[in-house]
Amino acid sequence: MENQRVGKQSFRLSSPPVITAWASVAGKKESEGPLSQYFDICSKDTYFGQKTWELGERKMQQMALDTLIKKAGLTKDDLGVVFSGDLLNQCIGSSFTLRNMDVPHLGLYGACSTMAESLLLGAMTVGGGFSDKVVAMTSSHFASSERQYRFPLNYGGQRPPTAQWTVTGAGAALLCKEGYGPRITGCTMGTVTDLGITDANNMGAAMAPAALATISSHFRDFQVSADDYDLIVTGDLGQLGKDILMQLSSQNHIFLGGKLTDCGTLIYDAAKQDVHSGGSGCGCSAITLCGCLLNKLQAGEWKRILFCGTGALLSPTSTQQGLPISGVCHAVVIEGGNQKWRILSHF
Amino acid sequence: MENQRVGKQSFRLSSPPVITAWASVAGKKESEGPLSQYFDICSKDTYFGQKTWELGERKMQQMALDTLIKKAGLTKDDLGVVFSGDLLNQCIGSSFTLRNMDVPHLGLYGACSTMAESLLLGAMTVGGGFSDKVVAMTSSHFASSERQYRFPLNYGGQRPPTAQWTVTGAGAALLCKEGYGPRITGCTMGTVTDLGITDANNMGAAMAPAALATISSHFRDFQVSADDYDLIVTGDLGQLGKDILMQLSSQNHIFLGGKLTDCGTLIYDAAKQDVHSGGSGCGCSAITLCGCLLNKLQAGEWKRILFCGTGALLSPTSTQQGLPISGVCHAVVIEGGNQKWRILSHF
Repeated sequence: MENQRVGKQSFRLSSPPVITAWASVAGKKESEGPLSQYFDICSKDTYFGQKTWELGERKMQQMALDTLIKKAGLTKDDLGVVFSGDLLNQCIGSSFTLRNMDVPHLGLYGACSTMAESLLLGAMTVGGGFSDKVVAMTSSHFASSERQYRFPLNYGGQRPPTAQWTVTGAGAALLCKEGYGPRITGCTMGTVTDLGITDANNMGAAMAPAALATISSHFRDFQVSADDYDLIVTGDLGQLGKDILMQLSSQNHIFLGGKLTDCGTLIYDAAKQDVHSGGSGCGCSAITLCGCLLNKLQAGEWKRILFCGTGALLSPTSTQQGLPISGVCHAVVIEGGNQKWRILSHF
Repeated sequence: MENQRVGKQSFRLSSPPVITAWASVAGKKESEGPLSQYFDICSKDTYFGQKTWELGERKMQQMALDTLIKKAGLTKDDLGVVFSGDLLNQCIGSSFTLRNMDVPHLGLYGACSTMAESLLLGAMTVGGGFSDKVVAMTSSHFASSERQYRFPLNYGGQRPPTAQWTVTGAGAALLCKEGYGPRITGCTMGTVTDLGITDANNMGAAMAPAALATISSHFRDFQVSADDYDLIVTGDLGQLGKDILMQLSSQNHIFLGGKLTDCGTLIYDAAKQDVHSGGSGCGCSAITLCGCLLNKLQAGEWKRILFCGTGALLSPTSTQQGLPISGVCHAVVIEGGNQKWRILSHF
């Protein structure tokens, strides 16, 4: 059986790549949240021992990669290619992580959808026979993001209620041709979707239409529904964005059947942690997946989830020039169970 | 025959994707240079009819995509996925180009190596059976790059002799499962290589070691030499970077056999156009490939070239923080001839 293009935006993997290992590194606030038990490393130091936040973010990615390699029982020379990207201008968190490591690197920019995009491309690479071992990785950092996208922290700007809190965290997953673990059986590639939101403090609203577009395309392409999933999890819509997605899905008669959740609403305790609308950033979906979600899939708690990485495509320049914020969402089907994994017949 | 991983960094395509169409849009200075006859569109307007340089860059990419679709006799709905990225922060040139086009988009950041990276990933996508029609695309713009990476043009900063001139141009190529045209038969994925250069006005020196690393890995992985190629063409080392690559290759006993050229030295007339060390930017290799090189491959002038996209991985922040400039280089084997294409037996 060959890999198969399915519908307009999707493909099915004939030999689904196995996620044999995963690793997560979390910052201080994330370590105080409800998912802290799932993270491999919880750091109280926002600088991760470095001089600058940017170098701290790099260090965090390095820690995630090192932990992944260790957990998988490999060395860096076993890695066929690393797909990674981040939110820093020119993705320096990712490129500096791989500096002089002598491991092939393909850099991505998918904003906060990067964890899903890197998994999707990693699945293509393994499923297409181009490499046996691929890493999908990303990170974000609250302080480096605020400075770059909004205001320096020292400015003490007031955050509006719609604002989300950029997660300080790095996640990495290893995709292999063979092995035990959850598997990626299908993917849906997102389109750039824009309903005209221009408020850089309201990312959830900008990304929700993209999430709906991809989820509905996924349903249409594979001829499936929410009933086929134990969970449909978006990346970082936050509470407000999730509410908007619920409304939009209802208006458009896309039935989500109570399966929807969002990493941005899972990662913090909204009542206690003063994060307004919830978490955001590449790291948000990355450490939720590479901490909590993959653990639960491995344990057999869920059989199949749809992991939907959401990204807001903007730059400070485009916002200052009054341009709208586009969204993108890539979706990856991950099937769980460690021992007797099989492709469910009707999928 | 299946796709095959070859050596540490490379892979061979069992059914080489065909580049059935390509398109290039060039700015004013590029249109006055020695390659002007090859470009589909030559614009005298640096703004491309828009209000800002950033929107001009977007317009330029849109023109390249529209021209490509037209030349291929397709509509946008025929496109399976577009791989693209650019130099603007958060790659807004690419994401705004695809805004609300309803075409799947996977965003890349490979700095000036993006044309090669997008071809490599496009070849994987078609070769792996995930899509029949994939676009690889990128752009750069002199004015938007100077403002973002160095100084606003109005500042009138003096350019040192090592500086290169960012090409204003956009290139796009269509990769198909079937059809007539040059084919991608193998690829080598680059590693992030850094010898400690910190001068943001000397990109060629920063990228030359990465180019050498990838070319030598390519030779080793495929067990080939410069003799197997009619041309080895780097992306944007410029005159200085090319000279450094020649020196490094000689020191490391990597024989390039007079086959080396660089898009940054081809695109301008150095004696007349006051570009110091030559051209640079994603658009440099993009319009040289999607203008001149693919035309010549199609015409049978060359049988096989190694197209090596070179990228300097830096941000103004990393430079201001005194960090070195890493380089990356991805290489794509393109075999020419329109009619009777075949994989040469010894490759």
